[in-house]
Amino acid sequence: MAKGASISGFPEWLPSERVVEQRVIDTLRSVFELNGFIGIETRAVEQGSSLLKKGETSKEIYLLSRLQEVGHESDTPIEDRLGLHFDLTVPLSRYVVEHSGDLAFPFKRWQIQKVWRGERPQEGRFREFVQADIDVIGNGDLPDHYEVELPLVMVSALERLREFGLPKATVHANNRKLSEGFYRGLGLTDIEGVLREIDKLDKIGADEVARLLVEGCGANEHQAFACLELAELTAADGAELAEKFDALCAKHAITTDSDAYALARQGLDTLAMIVDEAARIRPGSVIADLKIARGLDYYTGSVYETFLDGAAALGSICSGGRYDNLASQGSRKYPGVGLSIGLSRLVSYMLHTAGAHANRVSPASVLVAVWNEADRSACNVIANQLRARGIAADVAPTAAKLGKQIKYADKLGIPYVWFPADAAEDGAGDEVKNIVTGDQQAADARSWEPDTVYARQTVTVEA
Amino acid sequence: MAKGASISGFPEWLPSERVVEQRVIDTLRSVFELNGFIGIETRAVEQGSSLLKKGETSKEIYLLSRLQEVGHESDTPIEDRLGLHFDLTVPLSRYVVEHSGDLAFPFKRWQIQKVWRGERPQEGRFREFVQADIDVIGNGDLPDHYEVELPLVMVSALERLREFGLPKATVHANNRKLSEGFYRGLGLTDIEGVLREIDKLDKIGADEVARLLVEGCGANEHQAFACLELAELTAADGAELAEKFDALCAKHAITTDSDAYALARQGLDTLAMIVDEAARIRPGSVIADLKIARGLDYYTGSVYETFLDGAAALGSICSGGRYDNLASQGSRKYPGVGLSIGLSRLVSYMLHTAGAHANRVSPASVLVAVWNEADRSACNVIANQLRARGIAADVAPTAAKLGKQIKYADKLGIPYVWFPADAAEDGAGDEVKNIVTGDQQAADARSWEPDTVYARQTVTVEA
Repeated sequence: MAKGASISGFPEWLPSERVVEQRVIDTLRSVFELNGFIGIETRAVEQGSSLLKKGETSKEIYLLSRLQEVGHESDTPIEDRLGLHFDLTVPLSRYVVEHSGDLAFPFKRWQIQKVWRGERPQEGRFREFVQADIDVIGNGDLPDHYEVELPLVMVSALERLREFGLPKATVHANNRKLSEGFYRGLGLTDIEGVLREIDKLDKIGADEVARLLVEGCGANEHQAFACLELAELTAADGAELAEKFDALCAKHAITTDSDAYALARQGLDTLAMIVDEAARIRPGSVIADLKIARGLDYYTGSVYETFLDGAAALGSICSGGRYDNLASQGSRKYPGVGLSIGLSRLVSYMLHTAGAHANRVSPASVLVAVWNEADRSACNVIANQLRARGIAADVAPTAAKLGKQIKYADKLGIPYVWFPADAAEDGAGDEVKNIVTGDQQAADARSWEPDTVYARQTVTVEA
Repeated sequence: MAKGASISGFPEWLPSERVVEQRVIDTLRSVFELNGFIGIETRAVEQGSSLLKKGETSKEIYLLSRLQEVGHESDTPIEDRLGLHFDLTVPLSRYVVEHSGDLAFPFKRWQIQKVWRGERPQEGRFREFVQADIDVIGNGDLPDHYEVELPLVMVSALERLREFGLPKATVHANNRKLSEGFYRGLGLTDIEGVLREIDKLDKIGADEVARLLVEGCGANEHQAFACLELAELTAADGAELAEKFDALCAKHAITTDSDAYALARQGLDTLAMIVDEAARIRPGSVIADLKIARGLDYYTGSVYETFLDGAAALGSICSGGRYDNLASQGSRKYPGVGLSIGLSRLVSYMLHTAGAHANRVSPASVLVAVWNEADRSACNVIANQLRARGIAADVAPTAAKLGKQIKYADKLGIPYVWFPADAAEDGAGDEVKNIVTGDQQAADARSWEPDTVYARQTVTVEA
């Protein structure tokens, strides 16, 4: 991150770092489009009423006021004020309802945009950052095969990001119906409460969670222990998942003909479908992990978190789930499935831990040298001839000594310096020098091509 | 614009419209990079003190407050609060000073980002919109040839946008030093006041401007008339400009050995260089137009506005100039030259006046049909084979009747529907149908290629 960024929580990249972020964004966009997702951008602001309605982060809002309103902000209720969106899911829900007549359903969209969290400033937390989301929204209903496909699209996207130093990613999936059915089978009723405590498992440990379940969610010790047993369950395929789950149900006397089991089984079947299809397409990319709860209150089916090998400290880098009740219009519902990548944190990891870096700061392949200012117009012509053929070119800032011009190219990482023919030297033509290899040769701006390896700005990872 | 967008001044595009905006952004980025500009993104917020300092728009700020601070906003002075940036020039100045040790100068950067104006809502005014800027910033000094090159980069960028329906653009250039020297030569001293009134010429007419110059800027009728005469001066080349200007000076007894004339001549020489170099590279793209004043107080040399043929109502679509005093650190100055395109208004014009439209909503070229849900996994394999070769593909949402699946493809503008081999029909292989032409043929997902004309999402303009 740029040193000395003057406002805590608002990261800003140096130009060479921005190259990495831009490549990551370009890569995600291309994967999303390859999978038929449609790009949209929503406005940065939503009504306060819409922001306050849903989500764990709805307490971390930045509200806006016009300069002219300062001192009178409180005249307007928060619900009627404008605020910056804290995620891209709430805006999507609003967008889909607002424009439902103009959209084809199921509506598959990608969206890469900044979001803001009005948190207290604290070390390592971003208050402005970029999210990269895919969601599919149905009109009335939505087939559950999307709960399989969307995490797999994210897996293929994250796979592509390994060229920028990202370790292998594994999606951990669970299903709210499975958890709820099991909890109900145990005789528990405060389902949201139990999920909220289970979500803390990695942070505070099993003993503490058990205590909270007993003290706050009406569980006895046996029930609390059973919830923790469920949370420990993982499986790489559907058969293993069903076997382990049924054993647990048997142990806790949840009978297979109960309503609770039927609900759990519905969730289990979807989860089994996810891991089995993932195993066919990308073995090892998705596992069933029954401790995944997700803090957000709006998920109703599958929930996902994604972890990177050897980067546990980062936490989940791509999360989401199925939400059936986030968007509605009268009695019509718009159920959705979506996942969101916290892109700024990923880029930060690539830059500072994985050693991703741009091969050069400038997009230009060539710097055209200027012998004296009177020749500048001719130098512009050369640069334009290169640009017309897709070769990015810059022209030296001043007719300084050649050494200084080469130093400027070197500082920007521009690999070639172009020497226009010196009008004074009879018969000599243009030459171009690769300042990396030292190779220099005669060249014509209407036909010369850079060597492939020097032709483009690229991102590589330190060995 | 999306119908019924529920907050006035915050435009939001429908998916097919967003395709056009995205193409415009991609095109501008590619032109900027071809010219060696480096992409950066600055945070959306700046300190209030920084936003209040400069620029005509500094009265149109959105300030932020955290939800937890509501009711206590006034405890913090505006200077210490955070606000959304209203342009990309003020953030650039701050960024350059903050990171000067990490940048190579002159620093040429492009930046395409949203900006916000905390205006009262009114018809046709955007409060959130995208700007596309290029600037070059020097460390200590900055050669004036950049005052020629930057408008020419914008001209070539706007030229590329003609494929999306933009009419021919002409940059109208002036120079503050030329105007100031002339006004001083007339004996006027309130230079900023005169520039401010001259800037209103197109809106309120010459008589009214003359009245304001006399009443508010200390001009007599003769001086006011002379200012208006200067504002009427236009020229297509440097020689014509010098000739007309010298004639005007002679008429008003401004002698060529005066300090005022020397100042004016400095501006004139730069302006002549601009129009002459432009005439060599792109004849007719830049003219000298001495009524261009620009409202912003920070310009010190060249100023530019850009108008589209036959779209006078749009006003200037790309404006800027040279600013020597916007950024500084102690006694060190960072002079700059830059231009900014108001991108959202341009896209609105392309969509609603020029008839630009996407050939399809979905980026997918192919929809793989699903005969029944049990085959979905095999359909995913086909789609993945296509994607692996760069062909964007979607899979039908449900195993509905074929007609319904084709209708879904049609609604999204997906040109091909893929029919997987029916396991029931012995020996029959996959087929693919172009639903635009009706052509249907045997195909293998590992080798088939779409016809070029149907391969990509493109933007065309109605005849």
